[in-house]
Amino acid sequence: MAVYLNNRFLENENALLHVSDLSMQRGYAIFDFFRTVNGIPLFLPDHLDRFFASAGAMYLPVKQSREELASIIIELIKRTPIPEAGIRMMLTGGYSADHFQPAEPNLLITCNPIRMFDRSDFEKGFSIITYEHQRNLPHIKSINYQMGVWLLPELKKQQADEVLYYNNNIITEFPRSNIFIVTPQNKLVTPKRNMLMGVTRKHVLTLAADILPAEERDISLDELLQSREVMLTSTTKRIVPVLKINNRHIGDGKPGKITTILYEKLIAAEAALGVH
Amino acid sequence: MAVYLNNRFLENENALLHVSDLSMQRGYAIFDFFRTVNGIPLFLPDHLDRFFASAGAMYLPVKQSREELASIIIELIKRTPIPEAGIRMMLTGGYSADHFQPAEPNLLITCNPIRMFDRSDFEKGFSIITYEHQRNLPHIKSINYQMGVWLLPELKKQQADEVLYYNNNIITEFPRSNIFIVTPQNKLVTPKRNMLMGVTRKHVLTLAADILPAEERDISLDELLQSREVMLTSTTKRIVPVLKINNRHIGDGKPGKITTILYEKLIAAEAALGVH
Repeated sequence: MAVYLNNRFLENENALLHVSDLSMQRGYAIFDFFRTVNGIPLFLPDHLDRFFASAGAMYLPVKQSREELASIIIELIKRTPIPEAGIRMMLTGGYSADHFQPAEPNLLITCNPIRMFDRSDFEKGFSIITYEHQRNLPHIKSINYQMGVWLLPELKKQQADEVLYYNNNIITEFPRSNIFIVTPQNKLVTPKRNMLMGVTRKHVLTLAADILPAEERDISLDELLQSREVMLTSTTKRIVPVLKINNRHIGDGKPGKITTILYEKLIAAEAALGVH
Repeated sequence: MAVYLNNRFLENENALLHVSDLSMQRGYAIFDFFRTVNGIPLFLPDHLDRFFASAGAMYLPVKQSREELASIIIELIKRTPIPEAGIRMMLTGGYSADHFQPAEPNLLITCNPIRMFDRSDFEKGFSIITYEHQRNLPHIKSINYQMGVWLLPELKKQQADEVLYYNNNIITEFPRSNIFIVTPQNKLVTPKRNMLMGVTRKHVLTLAADILPAEERDISLDELLQSREVMLTSTTKRIVPVLKINNRHIGDGKPGKITTILYEKLIAAEAALGVH
């Protein structure tokens, strides 16, 4: 597997940073993550948009232009010929002299095999729990997933697949995914603030336009529990039906009608992009 | 300069971790930091206590015993013969196969020169601003200083030295230091929850016992602004008088009486430990 570090391609085992990098000293770095199908990066323009937006919001200058980054990514994929890969582009606070002030950022792009969720994962669906937490600077895709990792033992204990954050009774997002509900009035609703704008979320909203009315707005915990359908969206998980929340069933225990239609549409959209 | 990584001593330039480490993937790691004076680690038992407490609270197992860690630190100091050093012991989430689940932790202990605050820093004092923010898992000394680093441009803009966090109108801590106030009734007060228990904070409370009554309790923003004296405590800064808050003067613009007495006592306590 190949890796790109600052200005050159390396073997994966050489993707090393010195401990003085601000990612290790202070958790200060941003990244973006997307996948390839048959060597084609999926929704790359969206991910580049977000990468530059995160970098700007964290005051981390990107040396490369958008076009340069895109061609580095294409070259990296060529050097790592696996059909489905996850590409992670990370920009850190750099090697800080005083271990607190940002220095010249380190850029690191890796390409690894990924496990995609498939139809059997979709059929099984997810059981989730809720947890009161608000991520800092939630619009920035930073490396701060401390709470998500820290909650893993709690998930295991409660035999749940994922944790949904809420704050002041309003749901926001999962640690690595977005949430959608279908209301009893058959509206598709997803939060629009205090969370990260997922790329899959954006495409699901577009795909929904032909099917049902959609809204981006606050959703309370109460409204969540009264939903007809609940689903999670992410790059590697695509769309996953949420069938249980805090041990309470949502719907009839099977993937809902709207969730299934959106899932099929998303698969078809990927195919239309020439990647299936 | 020497470095200890997992089970051996290395040169500083080899203090490298692979990008798959959970510190870089997800900001998941804990650390502790203390200083040496004339080769003697200052308040080491307190820092080891906190290191093990942070590791436990983050579900990161420490392979070494307390005694083993202490002797590694002593050996590291021997190999880096500088009179005043900062020792940083970091324990990370390890090389994670799926970039989310913790693996076997990496232990990294570094020893670097530090700039200590001296008398002229004390005399100058600090101008601070306040900012609404609550750190996650604040009792754990994790590497999550995202907000503290992110606020640096704001500090510069406002020509301030430090930022004090508050939440629901209650002050908690600085990104890397604790706060004390002296009330108009001549009581020493410091927050006791939603913040990190600093080692210097602990010793200042002990030193204060002979001088004035001390309390650990919530302090509102209002009470802060009505304080007779305000000070900041940390390992490298010792005690620094806060002379301005949001551009409003505290006291008469010079270090206060109690602040100065505590500072002298702290310097003397260090000397009594045979380190001056």
